[in-house]
Amino acid sequence: MTMMEEMKLFTLNSNRALAEEIAQELDMEIGASSITRFSDGEVQIRIEETVRGFDTYLIQSTSEPGSEYLMELLIMIDALKRASARSINIVIPYYGYSRQDRKARSREPITAKLIANLLEAAGATRVLTLDLHAAQVQGFFNIPVDELRANRLLTEYFQKKNLTNVTVVAPENAGTSRARKLADQLDAPIAFLDKQRGNAPGAVQGVNVIGDIEGRSAIIIDDMIDTARTVTTGSMALLENGAKEVFACCTHGVLSEPAVSRIRESSLKEVIITNSIFQPPQKRDERIITLSVGRLFAEGIRRVQSNESVSTLF
Amino acid sequence: MTMMEEMKLFTLNSNRALAEEIAQELDMEIGASSITRFSDGEVQIRIEETVRGFDTYLIQSTSEPGSEYLMELLIMIDALKRASARSINIVIPYYGYSRQDRKARSREPITAKLIANLLEAAGATRVLTLDLHAAQVQGFFNIPVDELRANRLLTEYFQKKNLTNVTVVAPENAGTSRARKLADQLDAPIAFLDKQRGNAPGAVQGVNVIGDIEGRSAIIIDDMIDTARTVTTGSMALLENGAKEVFACCTHGVLSEPAVSRIRESSLKEVIITNSIFQPPQKRDERIITLSVGRLFAEGIRRVQSNESVSTLF
Amino acid sequence: MTMMEEMKLFTLNSNRALAEEIAQELDMEIGASSITRFSDGEVQIRIEETVRGFDTYLIQSTSEPGSEYLMELLIMIDALKRASARSINIVIPYYGYSRQDRKARSREPITAKLIANLLEAAGATRVLTLDLHAAQVQGFFNIPVDELRANRLLTEYFQKKNLTNVTVVAPENAGTSRARKLADQLDAPIAFLDKQRGNAPGAVQGVNVIGDIEGRSAIIIDDMIDTARTVTTGSMALLENGAKEVFACCTHGVLSEPAVSRIRESSLKEVIITNSIFQPPQKRDERIITLSVGRLFAEGIRRVQSNESVSTLF
Amino acid sequence: MTMMEEMKLFTLNSNRALAEEIAQELDMEIGASSITRFSDGEVQIRIEETVRGFDTYLIQSTSEPGSEYLMELLIMIDALKRASARSINIVIPYYGYSRQDRKARSREPITAKLIANLLEAAGATRVLTLDLHAAQVQGFFNIPVDELRANRLLTEYFQKKNLTNVTVVAPENAGTSRARKLADQLDAPIAFLDKQRGNAPGAVQGVNVIGDIEGRSAIIIDDMIDTARTVTTGSMALLENGAKEVFACCTHGVLSEPAVSRIRESSLKEVIITNSIFQPPQKRDERIITLSVGRLFAEGIRRVQSNESVSTLF
Amino acid sequence: MTMMEEMKLFTLNSNRALAEEIAQELDMEIGASSITRFSDGEVQIRIEETVRGFDTYLIQSTSEPGSEYLMELLIMIDALKRASARSINIVIPYYGYSRQDRKARSREPITAKLIANLLEAAGATRVLTLDLHAAQVQGFFNIPVDELRANRLLTEYFQKKNLTNVTVVAPENAGTSRARKLADQLDAPIAFLDKQRGNAPGAVQGVNVIGDIEGRSAIIIDDMIDTARTVTTGSMALLENGAKEVFACCTHGVLSEPAVSRIRESSLKEVIITNSIFQPPQKRDERIITLSVGRLFAEGIRRVQSNESVSTLF
Amino acid sequence: MTMMEEMKLFTLNSNRALAEEIAQELDMEIGASSITRFSDGEVQIRIEETVRGFDTYLIQSTSEPGSEYLMELLIMIDALKRASARSINIVIPYYGYSRQDRKARSREPITAKLIANLLEAAGATRVLTLDLHAAQVQGFFNIPVDELRANRLLTEYFQKKNLTNVTVVAPENAGTSRARKLADQLDAPIAFLDKQRGNAPGAVQGVNVIGDIEGRSAIIIDDMIDTARTVTTGSMALLENGAKEVFACCTHGVLSEPAVSRIRESSLKEVIITNSIFQPPQKRDERIITLSVGRLFAEGIRRVQSNESVSTLF
Repeated sequence: MTMMEEMKLFTLNSNRALAEEIAQELDMEIGASSITRFSDGEVQIRIEETVRGFDTYLIQSTSEPGSEYLMELLIMIDALKRASARSINIVIPYYGYSRQDRKARSREPITAKLIANLLEAAGATRVLTLDLHAAQVQGFFNIPVDELRANRLLTEYFQKKNLTNVTVVAPENAGTSRARKLADQLDAPIAFLDKQRGNAPGAVQGVNVIGDIEGRSAIIIDDMIDTARTVTTGSMALLENGAKEVFACCTHGVLSEPAVSRIRESSLKEVIITNSIFQPPQKRDERIITLSVGRLFAEGIRRVQSNESVSTLF
Repeated sequence: MTMMEEMKLFTLNSNRALAEEIAQELDMEIGASSITRFSDGEVQIRIEETVRGFDTYLIQSTSEPGSEYLMELLIMIDALKRASARSINIVIPYYGYSRQDRKARSREPITAKLIANLLEAAGATRVLTLDLHAAQVQGFFNIPVDELRANRLLTEYFQKKNLTNVTVVAPENAGTSRARKLADQLDAPIAFLDKQRGNAPGAVQGVNVIGDIEGRSAIIIDDMIDTARTVTTGSMALLENGAKEVFACCTHGVLSEPAVSRIRESSLKEVIITNSIFQPPQKRDERIITLSVGRLFAEGIRRVQSNESVSTLF
Repeated sequence: MTMMEEMKLFTLNSNRALAEEIAQELDMEIGASSITRFSDGEVQIRIEETVRGFDTYLIQSTSEPGSEYLMELLIMIDALKRASARSINIVIPYYGYSRQDRKARSREPITAKLIANLLEAAGATRVLTLDLHAAQVQGFFNIPVDELRANRLLTEYFQKKNLTNVTVVAPENAGTSRARKLADQLDAPIAFLDKQRGNAPGAVQGVNVIGDIEGRSAIIIDDMIDTARTVTTGSMALLENGAKEVFACCTHGVLSEPAVSRIRESSLKEVIITNSIFQPPQKRDERIITLSVGRLFAEGIRRVQSNESVSTLF
Repeated sequence: MTMMEEMKLFTLNSNRALAEEIAQELDMEIGASSITRFSDGEVQIRIEETVRGFDTYLIQSTSEPGSEYLMELLIMIDALKRASARSINIVIPYYGYSRQDRKARSREPITAKLIANLLEAAGATRVLTLDLHAAQVQGFFNIPVDELRANRLLTEYFQKKNLTNVTVVAPENAGTSRARKLADQLDAPIAFLDKQRGNAPGAVQGVNVIGDIEGRSAIIIDDMIDTARTVTTGSMALLENGAKEVFACCTHGVLSEPAVSRIRESSLKEVIITNSIFQPPQKRDERIITLSVGRLFAEGIRRVQSNESVSTLF
Repeated sequence: MTMMEEMKLFTLNSNRALAEEIAQELDMEIGASSITRFSDGEVQIRIEETVRGFDTYLIQSTSEPGSEYLMELLIMIDALKRASARSINIVIPYYGYSRQDRKARSREPITAKLIANLLEAAGATRVLTLDLHAAQVQGFFNIPVDELRANRLLTEYFQKKNLTNVTVVAPENAGTSRARKLADQLDAPIAFLDKQRGNAPGAVQGVNVIGDIEGRSAIIIDDMIDTARTVTTGSMALLENGAKEVFACCTHGVLSEPAVSRIRESSLKEVIITNSIFQPPQKRDERIITLSVGRLFAEGIRRVQSNESVSTLF
Repeated sequence: MTMMEEMKLFTLNSNRALAEEIAQELDMEIGASSITRFSDGEVQIRIEETVRGFDTYLIQSTSEPGSEYLMELLIMIDALKRASARSINIVIPYYGYSRQDRKARSREPITAKLIANLLEAAGATRVLTLDLHAAQVQGFFNIPVDELRANRLLTEYFQKKNLTNVTVVAPENAGTSRARKLADQLDAPIAFLDKQRGNAPGAVQGVNVIGDIEGRSAIIIDDMIDTARTVTTGSMALLENGAKEVFACCTHGVLSEPAVSRIRESSLKEVIITNSIFQPPQKRDERIITLSVGRLFAEGIRRVQSNESVSTLF
């Protein structure tokens, strides 16, 4: 059976802070490699220590700039393969392009599937990831995928708050099962936000609240927060419908422009995210709480490498 | 460019009635083939006319008994490939196993993906299907997938009824976007059924109605109705919450035991399905209304073969 | 080198008795898994213990109902692959569809090859099987195939009988080399059954006996007995030509309807088969002798897992 | 539909005479290409006319020297692929290595399968061949295989001879079904040659004749004659057992040393072969009759290219 | 045979000017598509007209920013594939990462090969490109590659200048065969620049001129000019060794920082490039002459689509 | 981690002397296998000891006769794969067909790539080779390639000679970077041979010497010497231009006819080659010095098997 001594951990540029945390939890060093750019911007990668015969774990979120970070990942996989790594386990805390997982209209790509094909073509032998936008993306791969869940982190965060009269709220016409799961854990009812075409009576910017929210603490839950339009508009609608206070939480803090200013100007009490995506200083705010998935990934990697079951992790 | 004269249509055993209807709409004959069983039950297939250089379209739903019908499909694809068909377009009105589209728990298969791989390995070159359980299943394939939609058929059916005060209802913690789509077309609000762990106050068999249903005609919409537990329990909960009448509709009438008796004993006014799955006489009932997707598939096939856009079909 | 502790044994539904016997011979438990059906008949599989990093051996004959048992096998392979098994060794005592190993007529499938492709596409990494209908089926696979032989079992059975004046008989225009092999071991001459188109003088139901059989004990040998037409007709022809008594033997007792009643009504003294296919009680008969291949497979698995040569087994 | 004007015919070095005959039958020119050797013996190929968008047919038997002729074939396929041929149909009158179609002993290769894989890897899109040693070799390919049959040629040859009292003889413990087929067409009984381990009473060089041959004209039929040991020994045994005269026939005249001298010194009346393999002058003999498969292949190619059924050819 | 009416031309963002020129030469419109970015920077592509059954040609140089342009290309290929294009011909005037075509040191990637694999995995069916850094990159693909040559453009440019006493100069220890080719066409001798480790006597910045250059017009030729260090240093060394004047020419004007300022400050008389890479205004200079490859690519595409030979183009 | 006890070494027929030397250096026996020919010349291979679960290393140069030796290699790989070797590492001291690494003219094959595909299709899992004609051939493979270098051997040979006033000479318009590398190690300047179209003034058989060679010891370096035309003509030209003496060296002594007689009749002082290709007695000459790569390969194999870095070897 393989052992912890037979593995090496590498990271690329997207989230070195998380990689460091994972390494520390595993009591390991991150393997030496250089990831730079040639004069014309092409990605230049060299692995600086032997990986021959080792199980390798390569940490990279394909967050913005997604093309650059994906290219780094693909090139590093090629380098590991040609350097005779025994296995190439890619650890992708945030799987970019995951919303392009079907043809919403004709003649569109299914980019999330394309990327799965590219990663396999490059030579990846396993994927370790976190809260995919749709769980079906697992099936885009022919190699094993271990999908970790951040819901325990979020649940514990809210349990510690000891909120009373909580209602968990699903965002616009999606995610009711995710909301139901958190609600079960908080022993709470659920409601949801409904966005109707045209003007609906009583709607705030077209958003209706379906379910009873009067005098309750609302927690909007989604897998990711991108421009924050949904959660800030939703917050407004919930308060208009009598909510006492509104939290938003998610796994992946994409926080594209103008997410942070929208949050700052919003009526949201807190926005809870994880560090699956690295946040630069200008995207930080006291109302944005970041939970760490470092220990979760460290434990996931340890179990994969020790051939233990990952299933009890979530 | 390819032409209608360069195609041949074949069917297997799962839904010959629909295949005949498609052929009639296309003004074609179904190609000659024999699909029988050897003495030990093994599937025996022989194509009885040349397919060399033809674009072939092969109609088969992988409905119950799913293993038999899938095996027929795979073997016929092999026969078409070895007989030098130019293309093998498989027409799957109902894609069985589509609910096994992710690992819900660890150490489960992703059978919907497995089947996609098997179909490609056998030699299929294109898929034409209808309302997948999750649209992401498109991405399980590397060959082109054209997914037709039955929603226009369902919408037109309800529009002709001229119901007033309609609310469209999403089933247990899923399908709110499908419900929203029908609601937009009927200019109606939506509600949804919430199934909570443990006993919730006011819940009927654990099912809460979220949203206002008092005095309204409710239409529960789902992609498929299997054992009919969800729609019959939902109907009860909706009526208890004041609904005037309850309809249920879906694309795929799986109707496993005891679906039909549940529907017969239920408070549902009507259950609208399509003929994507063939219903044997014993599964028919006056309250079960079947809409035909024959013309829809005929038009889909015609456009694929004539290199016209399929996108305007839905 | 891999060791016996690094393997796990699983079985599906086709032949649990044989699987139990193999496990007992290996002094192992069969791994925990559930193989059931959903309400609509779809195969539902879940592996109930970790297989991460283990060499797995999965026992399943694809006997009748072949489509069901093949589907179980493919889905379990997918589950093992996604659960990160190190290797997936499929143990197929009876390889169904093996007679569909070539296009006998044009526009037929080569189903035995199709199945090989499906098994590889699903993720099988090795095949352990027994007496293929044609040895060439080995070449349908790109993964290693170990084909065990039951001839030693059959030989020993007849050697213990101490028959005198034995002639080994090849069935209708095939299998002369299989007959020659048994004949060499019993130090006997051979004859064969010839089925001619049209009426041949002296033929019993069109079957001529070529070779001298007068006063001799005849043993018809084939790889499988399906409807038992060949062996019962052959027996009649041999007795008409002066044979003293007639035995039939084979590896695979397919025994499709009406094999058992034919055997019961026949002049055959004994029909010797193995337990590569499970026989339900209604197919048992005192004239049908079953030899067990349990020890043979146990030893085969042990050698594969211990990296010992399998070749001396046969 | 594709047309004869859209095809080009090419040949390599193994059997230019047959290729010329095929071209003449098709009323076409053989495409210009140069197949030479570099100074170090490496195969040098260049196609001298455009093949872009054409269906190409490439004629080559992989007869002795098999490695050279196979290499020519693979390299030419690569050149055709990179030169953008629309399809690459390889016409292999004699498929070398076809006897290595299974592992007879452990740790042997299955070279016939390997070659199928190599041809597909190089880019072949279809195979047109003649009388494979085992029909199962068809299943070694995933691309369509059309296997032509020479039996009509052989049958007609013997029918014209108006022999009486014919018995068709299967060679050593194999090929009884091939013999049965010719026997059906000549309305004759069959016999076979049995080679026993050790000395059998009445055997000539270990070969027994099973079946009645007294005073009859015997025709030994095999798929190929290699060293001619089997047919010359068989002839001797048949004559000793009272046969009036002995013919031998086959599709493929491999005629390895010392086949021709054996035939010259034998008691065989005639040896009928086809020109699937080119025979150099020193291998010719008046007792060796060669039938041409040129027209058969020309018709096969014409039908493939015209999308007509090939099945009625045999 | 395919025709010009059966093709559609598309472009992405890297070099729309060249694409427009190609379209104009072909007298075609560029197909409608939108290539934008989502709020988080992810590439969003939609094809706005049907491509079903069409041969598509997609123009994109993978120049800086290479990751973005490559990602656009891969996603568009996926969209074309899923939209049922008959063929996907990618036209890559400049193939980025072409210098990463081997492992110069251990544990490096071979990115040029990786990209070939990615393009094939995405679904490209043919490549049309220009002057690869190493011709061997053709062999990185299994699909046909047509490599056009710009040398005729460069030759004609210098022929029109009517220079006398020309010497063609190969850059640092590479490209002598490219230099020899231009020299043959200009009927000139060649020289080359040699960069030695350590200080060599008479070397300018470590660069020696090997060959006679005294009083001659020197033309340095390379496949690409990146930072322009080689050509500007080379120019200095050539003038110190007595050259009358120095030109530099190449196919691909990569012109990374600080190439343009180096050229402006250099002793080079002219730098001739092509428009395989789009040059933004700030990279333009009167000493940088740009020749157009628009007509060359238009003719290449026309011939591919018309199944004419491309070989006479260069 | 894998260990030396888990490996087995095999050889085929091309260079048994080198294989024996490698085995001796590794203190191992060469594994038992028989590589013979059937009567019709087909390659017959059987592995005579178990390889199940072993890492196997298979030594074969694909030198003349290249088709035979390649075929041996492919068949043996197939046998190893089917015999369940854990890995199949092919050791190819001389990679034949490496000069066919691009389409020099249209409608040519890229045979070096074809062979890479064939080796992978057969089942090779790694390549260990020496001084490829172009390093880009590494990228023809998707499996890891370790390319060893003979330059240290050549450098040490010349360093021991203590030559003064050395100039390293690149052959006809190629290989300047290889020459520069040896020159750096010998601290020498370089020159090169230029072959011009038509007659150039002062050229010997069309070959000009570019660079100063007067009174110096010239060392022509190339990757291989085939017919020896280049080095013998080059030697003549160098001496005419005043060189004191001329050596030629290379890694691969292809030495096709009439290389040896040309060398014997030439003005070359010595020709240094390695034993990557076996030289039969008739190709030996006192002026041809052979250096052994046996220790280099032994060390390379040892490091691969022990998971040590190979990079420090060159």
